[in-house]
Amino acid sequence: MKVAKVVGNIWATRKDERLSGMKLLVVQPVNMENLESGSETFVAADMIGAGIGETVLLVSGSSARSAVNDMNIPVDATIVGIVDNLEVTH
Amino acid sequence: MKVAKVVGNIWATRKDERLSGMKLLVVQPVNMENLESGSETFVAADMIGAGIGETVLLVSGSSARSAVNDMNIPVDATIVGIVDNLEVTH
Amino acid sequence: MKVAKVVGNIWATRKDERLSGMKLLVVQPVNMENLESGSETFVAADMIGAGIGETVLLVSGSSARSAVNDMNIPVDATIVGIVDNLEVTH
Amino acid sequence: MKVAKVVGNIWATRKDERLSGMKLLVVQPVNMENLESGSETFVAADMIGAGIGETVLLVSGSSARSAVNDMNIPVDATIVGIVDNLEVTH
Amino acid sequence: MKVAKVVGNIWATRKDERLSGMKLLVVQPVNMENLESGSETFVAADMIGAGIGETVLLVSGSSARSAVNDMNIPVDATIVGIVDNLEVTH
Repeated sequence: MKVAKVVGNIWATRKDERLSGMKLLVVQPVNMENLESGSETFVAADMIGAGIGETVLLVSGSSARSAVNDMNIPVDATIVGIVDNLEVTH
Repeated sequence: MKVAKVVGNIWATRKDERLSGMKLLVVQPVNMENLESGSETFVAADMIGAGIGETVLLVSGSSARSAVNDMNIPVDATIVGIVDNLEVTH
Repeated sequence: MKVAKVVGNIWATRKDERLSGMKLLVVQPVNMENLESGSETFVAADMIGAGIGETVLLVSGSSARSAVNDMNIPVDATIVGIVDNLEVTH
Repeated sequence: MKVAKVVGNIWATRKDERLSGMKLLVVQPVNMENLESGSETFVAADMIGAGIGETVLLVSGSSARSAVNDMNIPVDATIVGIVDNLEVTH
Repeated sequence: MKVAKVVGNIWATRKDERLSGMKLLVVQPVNMENLESGSETFVAADMIGAGIGETVLLVSGSSARSAVNDMNIPVDATIVGIVDNLEVTH
């Protein structure tokens, strides 16, 4: 799973009907060692009620469909947790 | 999911028959922070009626097969929405 | 899906028996904007009868197993079309 | 599978209920030739009882769901072994 | 599929019991044009009886589970052939 920060919103009126009512957020992976922004932003479905600025836990691939409880919903990234704390040692 | 811009068309007469009648478009991922072109172009199936120049939402991997409503159709990227607006904060 | 050029052949006598009789080709992704060679070569199963030098359409991941009509065959990239024409605009 | 070092802990109180009771660890891929730290850290479910500083074997993607014995649990990386020894020749 | 060279062994006493008796090898992708070492090493299950120094054909992702004949075994890369010869043209 990846740790990412919620950085934006996205609107799509014309879309696959199975995505209707599903909250979509723009997320950016976070470098867990310095908490700086990491690689490219992408879009994730939100099942947890995350908000802009929060640090979240994400699953990708077919596991993102398990996370929305329906393997027929066409998503490939889903927010499955709000990160409270992160401790990285060396 | 990725945000991409539709940049081209592709024609293939000899192809897997399950792709017949399926619209295929060339797409290029978009950097959501500056809306500039991102990484390498690829080909996606279109289920929404997208056109050249439009910004779209894409799913990849096995989820792309869910998006075309038939897990037997051999696609690995599908357009599932037309992006109306995108708001990224820092 | 990716666009690639068929650049080679590969022979493997000792292999998983489900790959027997399956044609395997070496392919190299193509940059669709300038048609130059792109990233690293890999090996794909061919279901279309592609030949060296042809530009092909490829599916990857579990979708490559759909493309060979049997989810038990261990392949992760399959050629599903011969590209006739490609038009990329900016 | 990847070889990684366990480098941290992560806490998420609000999360998908299927992740409750599942131990999540921060891991960093290891370069197997010089045992130095490799690419970006990510989060993995732990089924083996790994601890900080240990070198572990990880599976990714849908195989990570097989590893937790339930294809409905939304994980995409799982620790499946503790590495005792690693021998790389050239 | 990828072409890789078998470069090492890995030992893990504490592991998922479904991996018991499964031979695991350290592999390094090969650049098919110059046969030099390519990207980062990883670990693959071996179903063919490959040995150190041999050039092998690998499948990744969920297809690696098809290759071990049991979709419940947690592997994400499997050796499915020994490469006898490779011919890349330009």
